[in-house]
Amino acid sequence: MAEETLSSQQVFQGRLIRVRVDRVRLPGGGESSREIVEHNGAVAIVALDGESHVLLVRQFRKAVERTLLEIPAGTLEPGEDPLECAHRELKEETGYAAGKMEHLGGFYSAPGFCAEYLTLYLATDLKPGPSNTEFDEDIELVRLPLSQTPQLIASGAICDAKSIIGLLSVLCLKGR
Amino acid sequence: MAEETLSSQQVFQGRLIRVRVDRVRLPGGGESSREIVEHNGAVAIVALDGESHVLLVRQFRKAVERTLLEIPAGTLEPGEDPLECAHRELKEETGYAAGKMEHLGGFYSAPGFCAEYLTLYLATDLKPGPSNTEFDEDIELVRLPLSQTPQLIASGAICDAKSIIGLLSVLCLKGR
Repeated sequence: MAEETLSSQQVFQGRLIRVRVDRVRLPGGGESSREIVEHNGAVAIVALDGESHVLLVRQFRKAVERTLLEIPAGTLEPGEDPLECAHRELKEETGYAAGKMEHLGGFYSAPGFCAEYLTLYLATDLKPGPSNTEFDEDIELVRLPLSQTPQLIASGAICDAKSIIGLLSVLCLKGR
Repeated sequence: MAEETLSSQQVFQGRLIRVRVDRVRLPGGGESSREIVEHNGAVAIVALDGESHVLLVRQFRKAVERTLLEIPAGTLEPGEDPLECAHRELKEETGYAAGKMEHLGGFYSAPGFCAEYLTLYLATDLKPGPSNTEFDEDIELVRLPLSQTPQLIASGAICDAKSIIGLLSVLCLKGR
């Protein structure tokens, strides 16, 4: 079913994303073009403390012009191991160090046009410490009972893919 | 917490996406830039037949160079009503018409850099008919028991955001 690349043109090179347009040969013959956003990939972390509370972060997202309530997350540096990135991002955004970081799965954000793959982790055995956000991140830490998150998802108060998938994975697939 | 736009430059205008770079003033002072992928938004449909089987589509996704197993979905035409789009896309990709199309929520795919919002629907009361995919879509219809989908998500066989969120929403939040 694969589409052979006939030609590929980079149209944008940014700090976080790159964009290219591929001319492809379709499996059944014929040609089409595909607009593709390249991304290094990312990690996101469901961080649970000993009282079954989850650590969330509230931050303004320019792309959607809204302040969102999300699980901690971050973009991989080129070549970075996702597990190391998860430890680093959790510490940077929340201040907490995780004694245990368990792989929870992963997903493509929007495979119709974007290469981003996001790896999910469950962080437990948390130890508090100082946070250390980047200069252009303005993050408010929010601690909530995990049991409250299904209603926040249903109401739309939690409304981004990684947070919904991370929380529902822990609640439904792992049965916490 | 909002970031004021100081200037905005469009760097790519495609058929499906547009890309711009905004210079922003940070809430705490200082400036930064934001790379933003604009998108009309999309819909995705969990289509359940009378025997609790779900309709999935298998298709090659150039952005990730893989064939993925997903719920039916499609991009909004400019100004299109998401509900109408859901009926249209389900019919185009699977051939089935839905007697009932229920709003299941929605989410931002990747709000760190992308404006795409995806609205989810639960389609029931399905009537078979001919499918009518676009010239550059090569889609195989797959019908599976809904009860098998948690293990397909856990194994990574279903691995895109809209499919995981749609299926877990029906299974966990609606308790099907």
